[in-house]
Amino acid sequence: MKNILILGGGKSSIFLIDYLADSCSQKDRKLILADLDLDQAKSKLQNKPNTEAIALNIENENERRKLIAKADIVVSMLPAAMHPLVSKDCVHLGKHFFSASYESESMKSLKSEIESKGLLFLNECGLDPGLDHMSAMKIIHEAKSKGEKILSFKSYCGGLLAPASEDNPWKYKFTWNPRNVVLAGQGTSQYIEKGELKFVPYQQVFKRIENIHFDGVGNFDGYPNRDSLSYRKVYGLEQIQTMLRGTLRRAGYCKAWDVFVQLGLTDDSFQLEMPEGSNLRQFLNAFLPYNKDLSVEEKIAKAIPEMDFPTFEKIQWLGFFGNRELPKTKGSPAAILQAILEEDWALNPEDVDMIVMQHLFEIKTNEGIKGISSSLVCYGEDSNYTAMAKTVGLPLAIAIDLFLDKKISISGLHVPVIPEIYNPVLEKLEEFGIRFIEKSKTK
Amino acid sequence: MKNILILGGGKSSIFLIDYLADSCSQKDRKLILADLDLDQAKSKLQNKPNTEAIALNIENENERRKLIAKADIVVSMLPAAMHPLVSKDCVHLGKHFFSASYESESMKSLKSEIESKGLLFLNECGLDPGLDHMSAMKIIHEAKSKGEKILSFKSYCGGLLAPASEDNPWKYKFTWNPRNVVLAGQGTSQYIEKGELKFVPYQQVFKRIENIHFDGVGNFDGYPNRDSLSYRKVYGLEQIQTMLRGTLRRAGYCKAWDVFVQLGLTDDSFQLEMPEGSNLRQFLNAFLPYNKDLSVEEKIAKAIPEMDFPTFEKIQWLGFFGNRELPKTKGSPAAILQAILEEDWALNPEDVDMIVMQHLFEIKTNEGIKGISSSLVCYGEDSNYTAMAKTVGLPLAIAIDLFLDKKISISGLHVPVIPEIYNPVLEKLEEFGIRFIEKSKTK
Repeated sequence: MKNILILGGGKSSIFLIDYLADSCSQKDRKLILADLDLDQAKSKLQNKPNTEAIALNIENENERRKLIAKADIVVSMLPAAMHPLVSKDCVHLGKHFFSASYESESMKSLKSEIESKGLLFLNECGLDPGLDHMSAMKIIHEAKSKGEKILSFKSYCGGLLAPASEDNPWKYKFTWNPRNVVLAGQGTSQYIEKGELKFVPYQQVFKRIENIHFDGVGNFDGYPNRDSLSYRKVYGLEQIQTMLRGTLRRAGYCKAWDVFVQLGLTDDSFQLEMPEGSNLRQFLNAFLPYNKDLSVEEKIAKAIPEMDFPTFEKIQWLGFFGNRELPKTKGSPAAILQAILEEDWALNPEDVDMIVMQHLFEIKTNEGIKGISSSLVCYGEDSNYTAMAKTVGLPLAIAIDLFLDKKISISGLHVPVIPEIYNPVLEKLEEFGIRFIEKSKTK
Repeated sequence: MKNILILGGGKSSIFLIDYLADSCSQKDRKLILADLDLDQAKSKLQNKPNTEAIALNIENENERRKLIAKADIVVSMLPAAMHPLVSKDCVHLGKHFFSASYESESMKSLKSEIESKGLLFLNECGLDPGLDHMSAMKIIHEAKSKGEKILSFKSYCGGLLAPASEDNPWKYKFTWNPRNVVLAGQGTSQYIEKGELKFVPYQQVFKRIENIHFDGVGNFDGYPNRDSLSYRKVYGLEQIQTMLRGTLRRAGYCKAWDVFVQLGLTDDSFQLEMPEGSNLRQFLNAFLPYNKDLSVEEKIAKAIPEMDFPTFEKIQWLGFFGNRELPKTKGSPAAILQAILEEDWALNPEDVDMIVMQHLFEIKTNEGIKGISSSLVCYGEDSNYTAMAKTVGLPLAIAIDLFLDKKISISGLHVPVIPEIYNPVLEKLEEFGIRFIEKSKTK
């Protein structure tokens, strides 16, 4: 009997747990879910056969190692910062390791030991990173096998609201870590376009948008995300002329969000203190030049010349021109903005989320330049069974199940860019409605 | 015989060394100049009587302490980061300490020990900080002594070129640490205006300028500098409604520099690598959106809508639209920009620098609101005897001389905001042409 140990049973683990629990009840396997919160772990497992919930503080070395020693496979759904603790134990104790997080430098340092012990360490096997790698590599390998040359690859992903829940002018609510949303785009994004290196600082990134369309769902803003250059090597596209990875927001979001960026409301580098009882209007005013003759509305229009009505409306809807009291008066601008948005962008119980992902390729074939778009739209089922949890958890769960079924039989340190992983995982995902729609056109 | 030990004999020490060497030759004192570079120290002292040059690596604890033990007063002209080493030795060995650097947290932690030993630790006694404190506090104390209320205080300072040396469109060359010039304004500046707190992020700071005029010298851009709010306490102006400290550049500089800021060329947070042999035009293009139909000139005009001819001319003069090879292809954008500017903004041997400082007060008097402007313009003598070295070094030298003459007879940890320091120092500085011109007008 094989033991699967899942560390961390938070919000995005629900599909992973259900899938593995169901497979354990059918196959000769046991699922152990270890979480700081025992009750949460129990409720996630729903008393299914061959499952067990255990209370664990991951920083308790003894308890952690005892649990890992009893497992055959360890799946970490913990915050990425805790992975070094777990991965070192796993390699030491000879256990396979799976996660949906980025392959860290710490992980890479274990590579030779992982290989010499014949273990499989599979990271980046969730949504983004994860599904993006798998679906893109399928197209890339296909083209390469035909001797075609990939000229351009742009890939976009967003965690958003299903259209039916888009009931505010931003068409956005927090379906994911609010802090990450407020700080999104900080640093300098890097990509390459037609052979020209491009560097985009924070103050430009929400202006550097492309319109991305999904049939039946509509238009989105895609802005460049972090370091796309490093993916040339990951995808074996060292000579590619255009490579960009981006993040999606509903059309119009970026222009309005950029107002906060330009004025400094997303700054997380210093602490400010507004007078007790200050309101949102006063907070906004603190980022505008003093002008005794102008209202806050007039000052913001002057400071942001490209302000248009849809942008103004979004900021107004959040209450920035009114006298609503600040939920928090001390902290970084970003922390105060986050506290405001957590009131305005909270999900209602009936809200449903949506994951959108699109790859755009230009491939040189014998017939001409072929454009391929490959699009995924995935809706959540309800506020627990979200699209985010589904697209993060199912690729990981399926990969683990296939590995235990010996349908994936590799070892070493990997991300899912190899056919032996992505082919069976993508195939299985289609049964759950996670399906990329491909369109192509040669000109 | 009293011993004065100067640690560090770099470029900005020349007036300090001359002043103290001359006073030592007249009074029963000895000046010891310790520097990593013995030859440099010797040449600075010019074999004057009662002086001695010594080679010292400041990180050699034994040598450093031996030297400090023999001194009565220690003057640090070292980079501020080395002050904790020296100040701890001084307090331990019971030596007075003088510097032109900011009073650090590490310095503050020594306060009670300094006091209990009856030592004087005087920091911020150069130009800015230094002269700014002294000249401002004189006006502030004068107003307070008359029972007047200070409504507004704005203070600007700049280290620039003398008009005769302004032979490029920027009217700027490096008269000070190039790296600090390239990174100037990063972080969020904070001030208060008419009772409204104001926070200015980097992407706004070079737009938030005021025109500052100096009679006979012309117009300057003043932009807000770092945290002006904390100076309310330093200056005893806790209830003031307007308080802003700013930096001066020649009129037009800020608008052109802001182009680099907006596009990301001053970013120091990541390393990039341009292809070997890339030119300035290609480097600039890497920060502009791809557009196959537009030239670099057209793309920059589109990305920066407020671009005007004087701005364009400045960027063109630096060579950004031409094919000059990059002096450096690897490094942060800021480091590459700095390397370019070090070629373009190098001082010629005949160039002369200039320090400008201006305080603007609004004071409520019985007669009405009195506006006071207090302005300093100081020109360098040549490329060694610069205005920067003069305005940094003389206040410090004079304070030390007065202290040894017992004309300043305080102890404790101080910055020069007290009349016992600033009155005699300002008086003496006038003999060297460092004189504030005051104008006032009541309306």
